[in-house]
Parts: sequence; structure tokens; C-alpha cells
Amino acid sequence: MTIDSLRVAVIGGGLIGAGWIARFAENGVDVSVYDPAPDAEEKANRVLENADRAYSKLTMAPRTNKGDVRFVDSIDKAVRNAGLIVEAVPEEPSLKKTIYAEIEKTAAAEALIASSTSGILPSNLQEGMLHPERLLVAHPFNPVYLLPLVELVGGRETAADVIRRASEIYRAIGMHPLHIKKEIEAFVADRLLEAVWRESLWLVKDGIATTGEIDDAIRFGFGLRWAQMGLFETYRLAGGEAGMRHFMAQFGPCLKWPWTKLTDVPDLTDELVDLIASQSDAQSGHHSIRELERIRDDNLVAILQALKVNNWGAGETLANYEKQRFDAGALTATDVDKSQPIRTLERLVPADWTDYNNHMNESRYLQCFADASDSLLRVIGVDAEYVANRGSYFTVETHIRHLNEVAALQPIYVTTQILKARGKKLHLFHRLYHGSDQLLATGEHMLLHVNLETRSASEPATEVSQRATEIAQAHAHLETPEGAGRAIGQPLSVGRTR
Amino acid sequence: MTIDSLRVAVIGGGLIGAGWIARFAENGVDVSVYDPAPDAEEKANRVLENADRAYSKLTMAPRTNKGDVRFVDSIDKAVRNAGLIVEAVPEEPSLKKTIYAEIEKTAAAEALIASSTSGILPSNLQEGMLHPERLLVAHPFNPVYLLPLVELVGGRETAADVIRRASEIYRAIGMHPLHIKKEIEAFVADRLLEAVWRESLWLVKDGIATTGEIDDAIRFGFGLRWAQMGLFETYRLAGGEAGMRHFMAQFGPCLKWPWTKLTDVPDLTDELVDLIASQSDAQSGHHSIRELERIRDDNLVAILQALKVNNWGAGETLANYEKQRFDAGALTATDVDKSQPIRTLERLVPADWTDYNNHMNESRYLQCFADASDSLLRVIGVDAEYVANRGSYFTVETHIRHLNEVAALQPIYVTTQILKARGKKLHLFHRLYHGSDQLLATGEHMLLHVNLETRSASEPATEVSQRATEIAQAHAHLETPEGAGRAIGQPLSVGRTR
Repeated sequence: MTIDSLRVAVIGGGLIGAGWIARFAENGVDVSVYDPAPDAEEKANRVLENADRAYSKLTMAPRTNKGDVRFVDSIDKAVRNAGLIVEAVPEEPSLKKTIYAEIEKTAAAEALIASSTSGILPSNLQEGMLHPERLLVAHPFNPVYLLPLVELVGGRETAADVIRRASEIYRAIGMHPLHIKKEIEAFVADRLLEAVWRESLWLVKDGIATTGEIDDAIRFGFGLRWAQMGLFETYRLAGGEAGMRHFMAQFGPCLKWPWTKLTDVPDLTDELVDLIASQSDAQSGHHSIRELERIRDDNLVAILQALKVNNWGAGETLANYEKQRFDAGALTATDVDKSQPIRTLERLVPADWTDYNNHMNESRYLQCFADASDSLLRVIGVDAEYVANRGSYFTVETHIRHLNEVAALQPIYVTTQILKARGKKLHLFHRLYHGSDQLLATGEHMLLHVNLETRSASEPATEVSQRATEIAQAHAHLETPEGAGRAIGQPLSVGRTR
Repeated sequence: MTIDSLRVAVIGGGLIGAGWIARFAENGVDVSVYDPAPDAEEKANRVLENADRAYSKLTMAPRTNKGDVRFVDSIDKAVRNAGLIVEAVPEEPSLKKTIYAEIEKTAAAEALIASSTSGILPSNLQEGMLHPERLLVAHPFNPVYLLPLVELVGGRETAADVIRRASEIYRAIGMHPLHIKKEIEAFVADRLLEAVWRESLWLVKDGIATTGEIDDAIRFGFGLRWAQMGLFETYRLAGGEAGMRHFMAQFGPCLKWPWTKLTDVPDLTDELVDLIASQSDAQSGHHSIRELERIRDDNLVAILQALKVNNWGAGETLANYEKQRFDAGALTATDVDKSQPIRTLERLVPADWTDYNNHMNESRYLQCFADASDSLLRVIGVDAEYVANRGSYFTVETHIRHLNEVAALQPIYVTTQILKARGKKLHLFHRLYHGSDQLLATGEHMLLHVNLETRSASEPATEVSQRATEIAQAHAHLETPEGAGRAIGQPLSVGRTR
């Protein structure tokens, strides 16, 4: 099963259901949704907007066209033709079972049914199903469109192949499927979350710390560790060269100390709920939920990108995902209109590309041009395989005219004109635009073909040379761009925009 | 108390003690260390090397000179003249008390004594002290030189002013002091860690998940949330517009479900220790501890920098810290030798500035030049106050010659020559070097003084104009740099290095 032909049904459009809708739609998958609540579509759209905003910044790869999202008025209409049916309704086993019965009236026998439950055993959910073998739990984490983790749990009757098929789907939409091989209530992640939640409730109830202080204890400390290594790998480091065994010998006994006694569950009395709600207001009430969601998403995007640079953990997942998208969306020589400058880059200005005034940083202009050069190189056949075996082009000289400013999250694009392609040399002229046609900057670049082993200039492969020359000849009919050949300090031409 | 005149003593040079040594030394504070173990100095140096590597990438601000680190052979020698005495010895109350008695024989009465204990009550530690009022717990998190959190806990006899004085010190070295107002064993963060540790031990013991799977459940999921918001702010979002109270109503009852029953502590039998150690080997054993430490540090640096861009949480702490350092380390017109190009930037190439071949990305050359321009601007008086009230310079044109490559973590520096400073225009020529004198690139830039309200060209303030002119006149005696005034496509001059 590839996701190209996949159709998804989502039953229940709350926070989790809407997160699923967003993740599939952002990956070009059509989604049918059933949720009887009158405001379901409106609420889900808010999540889709957040996802749209986050995905504009998440990867450098070209964005795929979004899948269609269609709200329908029955389960029957939603699941017809669906290859994957996502159930994201409230955590009541009887409700879920009623819905499965409804689904099975229409759904194809081989369609997967994935419950988003965060704690109910799949074996329990399978009771009474016509085709229990295709049910699994696929437990995601909010925001579903950004966090890669999805816990996959099969029940007693789940077919072995079902976990494999589901894993493929989740991987194709940028997730990290984690197969939990033995089903227990709450699976793995929520076990840990419940433990922290319980301990935190005691800390608040006993007046040791406020909700804000507890959050600070997490995010200024071990939260930073856990975003990249988990508990055990972190502790392995604490053990030093002697590793985990030493850590256990040294710190294991702490478990016997008095600080692990608070394991009862505090009663959620009105007083405790009031206390927590009012502390939470004091901590976060100056931001609306909408603002907090966007702050969270900006932070998550930035953390994922930071980890991507180190190709580690969730960053490795993102890197693989980006590669998939690049491969899927890359321009090729055949789909390029050679009579015009080629549109080599299209994106929104990421929030982290800007200065304190929210304008794109000086050096990011060059990054746009460098990315546009990379895209042009792929068009003429300098792809990953060519780079690994034959060589690449290095920029040896750059001239940028900064003509206008642009703010974060504004749409920008680059067009590229080949001024000359001869032998080892490739002479490019990029124009960076905002919106439909405001010229922000021009970049003139001389690139040299290089043998990556000797790191010195070399002739490109014939087919690369040919493709470049072909485009250069077509572009020879275009006007010489204003600014090409300029040296710094030359008088400006009349009519320059600034 | 400022840290300019602060001297610190560290008693115990293990992982935590060495982390403290590194953090203070990186901030220019002299540290005396006492640790009777024969290999203490060697082990501590390994941590200092890691910290040196991390700090080369942590901030854009100029690095301060490191403080002296001196290992001495007695507590007496270590604590003499120290304003802050850090105790980081094993978690045995009687050992700690013996050491405090020894410290108090020599230490000044007003010197602070800060225990690094992760769980013992400060009131217990104060028993029998001569000056118990100056003892506090300052509990840090590994790696101490990178994680901002330090929990400050006073005991019954701790003077109110002691927490305030300590907070100032920790803030000055880039930390986030969190004052825990009510002392309990394990304070706050370790309470939460113990809860997760206990739950994780059960999960491994019961064969639900391996150590690697548990770590994945953390780092691909909620760990990413916790690096930026904690538990409560995250759940506030799960409650939607209705906020925390709604979340509690919706999810509170889950606490009663069967999945919170596992609250006993499993016995750390040999079998369980073996199981965990062997799973940890399978998970992480292909990296040495040294490698893992560096991966961790690179990830933490990148995450902190990612959060800095959004000025959030630990990233806000880093931003404030960087500002402190910029203010402390900024070049001023008076300390510049005007007869030569000015050294405007000095740093190592950050690991996340490089491509898959480990060479500095094309656009980072411009970032070096943009940062060098900023540094030159500060020299001529364009500081934060000037920018807020008068205006700034914008780059309108750039010409870069890329002459050589440079790898991650290599030392680089930039020198800046003013070619011309007249009216609104500032014409700069930067040279980027690797090591002592390998020329990597040149950057020629035309800057224009701009009124930030109208966003259009304007005259700079007289004193800024004067300073720029003064340097330009001194630089007029220097040779015109090779490459200045070049346009792209001009024939290369003879003898160009490449």
C-alpha cells in the first residue's frame, strides 16, 4: 500500500481527529470525516490552519498539493472507499464498539481500522467485530500533525501484516511508528505521562510548587534532554564510561529513599481543580489558547529542525521525510518551461529566519539563492547520485542587490536564469520575489564544476553539460537582467526601486 | 555580588562537580577544586573539553577568557578567598557534614555554601554548622554547563538574602534559578524523574518495552513538548479554549483507570539490572560514552538555539545570556587599533552551519560578514540604544568571493576595512580567515543608513559619522584589497588561490 492511492476516513473530528485529518491532508491524502457535532468542521478547520502554518516552515522540500477534506453526514459515506479508517471518538469502549459495528457495515474487509485510544486494550475493542484482524491501536500525540510518535498496538486477533501495513502508511506521512509488542492499558508513553501527572498533582496539592514552577522544572532541565535522548540513554551518560550498570549501582538505591513514597492518587476535589486551574491561569493566561498553539508549533518546528541538522531522533525522521518529499516534488528537466526563467524555489519565510524586527535576515537572502541554485542543479541532472559519483558545482562568486525587505511567513519565490553555461562554468542570475511580483533581491552567481575527491575544477558529465546548455540557449533570448555584471560602488541606474 | 570578583571553590570533581567547574570557568570565574581521587583532574578535564566544544557554538557573542581552574590538595586551600563554595560529593549526609565542618574552619563567614544534593533536605544539612544561615541547596542537571535549570532550596536556617545572592550568581552564568519554597526530599524535578524511572523499570521488568523503545516513546513524542512547555501548559492546550479546567474534567478520571496501579517499586534484582544493562547496550552501545556526550551536547546546543529564535523558555535564558556577553565583550571605538583592518568576528564554525560534507554552507559566509558588519557598527556607535532611537545601517549590495572551504568546528575570524564612509553610505571590505591566515572568502558590502520608522535612507548621527570617518581615514593608508570593485564574470587576476 502506498499513500498515493490511499483514502482515509476519520471518525471524530476533535483535537486528535483533526490532527490526523491535518497530517493526512498535508501529505496529499484525501480525507472523509464524520463527526455529528454541529461545530466539528469549524473546530477542525482551526487545527488545519495551524497545520498549514507549521508545514510552511517544517521542511525545505516543495509542498505537495493538499488532500481534499470532506465532512460527510454519516459513517457510511465516510468509510466507503477508505483504505484506512481512523477512529478518534471519546474513550468509552461501548461507544467505540457501536461505531466499529457501523463501520463494518460498509467498509471493505481489508480496510484498516486504527483506534486513537490512549489506553484501552485493542483486544477489548476487537470483541464482537466482524473482522477483528484488521483493528489496531495507533495512538498519536498532540499536535498530531507535528509530533512524529505513533504507538502501534495489536490485540489478540490483530493480523501480523496489519502492523506492517500501518507502519508503512505512518512512515510515509512523516511519523515514527513504535510497535508496542505487549498490550497493557495506556501502553508506554501514557504510562510515563500518568506517573508524572500523578506526582505533579501531589506537588501542587501539597503546596510544594505551582503549575508554572513545575513546568519550569521540566522545560529548563530534563525536558531539554528528553527532546533528543530518552531516560535510559541519558542515564547511561550519567554512569560515565562504566555505563548503565554503574548508573544503576550508584543511583538505584535512591529508589528506596523517602522521596518515592507519594504513589497514591490524590483526590481530584473541587479545591484541587480550582487550585490548578487558577495557577495555570496565572502561568499562561496572558496568552490565548490560539497564541499558545502557535508558540508551541513554532518551538516544535524549530526543535525538529535543530535535531534534523544533527540527524538525530525526531530530526532524523524529519530528514527522511524531507528527502521523500524532495524526491517526489523535484523539478526535472522535462517539466520545466525553458522559454522563461525557471521557478526554482517557493516557500514562506520561516519565522526563525528573521531578526528582532521580524524581517528576513541578510544571510537568508543568500540561502534562498543557494537553495535555488541547488534546485536548478537538480534540473540539469546534478542529483544525489551524480554528486556521489561524479562531482558537483561550487559557488565561487556572488553578487547580491538587496532591494526590499520581507517579513516572516510571507510567501517568496525565486526564478533562475542561466546567463552562460560553458565548460566548467555556470553563470546564474536569480531573482527573489515576494507575493506575486515584488522584487526583493537579485543574486548573480558564478559556479564551477568540481571533482569532489580532488576538490578542484573539472568538466561536468556530458548529459549535465547538454541540459545546462539547452536551457542557456533558450534563456539567451531573454533580456540581460538589470544588475547583472554590476560591481559594488558603481552608480545606480535610474529607477532602481528602494 | 557580581561574578567579576567572584572566586569559586568546588569540593568534589565528579560529573556534577566538573560540570560546575566548566560552567564557572567558561564564564571567566576562577575555580579552586578539591577532590582526593587520584584521577579527578583527568576526569574533570574531559568535562571541561566537552564544555569548551559546546561553548564554541552556544552563543554568537565573543567568548570571555576562561577562568583559571586549579586543583589543590586540601579543602582549606580550595575555600580560602572563595565567595561561593560548591559541594558536589556523594549523597551521604554524614560525609557532607564532615566536609562542611572542614570548610567552615577556613571559609569567610559570609561565603555561600551550595550543596549540589539532588534530594537531601537543606535543613538536615544545616544541623551542626557554625553558620547554617549561608547554606542552601543549588541542585543542577547534567550537563551542568548546558542545562539552565538550578533548583534553589533553603533550609530552616537559611537567611532570606542567601537565595537572592545565589540567584544573581546563577543568572550571571546563564542559568535559570528556580526557587523551591518548601523543602521536600528530591525537591521538584527529581520527584518527576523518579516517577518516570519507577514506571519505566516496571515496563522493562514486565517485558512491555525495551529501554530503547521507552526512550523512543519519550523523544519522538512528549519529550519534544517538554523541551519548551512543561506538563501543565501542554495540557492547557489539550483542553482547548476551555483551558485547564476542561482538561481536568475530561482527563482527570483517567487517573482512576487501571493504568495507574503500578506504583510499587520493583526490586532491583540482578536479573533486572542485567536486563536493563543489556538492553541499554543494544540501544546505545555502538556509540562510546564520549561520542554520546558530544551528540547530546550538539543536540542541546541546537535546541537551545532553536528556542532562542522564538525567545521562549530556555531559549529566552540563552538570549539574555548572550546579550550580557555581547555587552561585556563588545568592541568599542577606544579599544580598536585603527591602523589595521579591525578584527570584528572570532568563533568556531558551528556544527549546524555545515552541509552533509561537513563544510560550511554557502549562506553562512554571508552570515559571518553580516555579523562582522554588526560588530563594526557597534564600534562606530550603532548600539541597541542608537538603533532604538536613531536608525541603523542596511546592506544594499554584497559581493562575495568564495576562495576556500572550511569544516565544522574550525576557528575562523573576520577582519573589516572601511573603504569609504561618506554621508549615508558605508563601504566595507571583510576578509574571512581560517586558523591564523588562510583566506576563505572576501565580502564587499555597501551599507546605507536608514531611518527605521520611514524605512528610507537618512543621515547618521554626527558622532557615528565621525567615528566611521576616523577609521576610514586611518584605513585609507592600507592597500586596496584584491577583489574590491570586481564584477562577476570579469577575468580572474593572476595568482588567485583556488
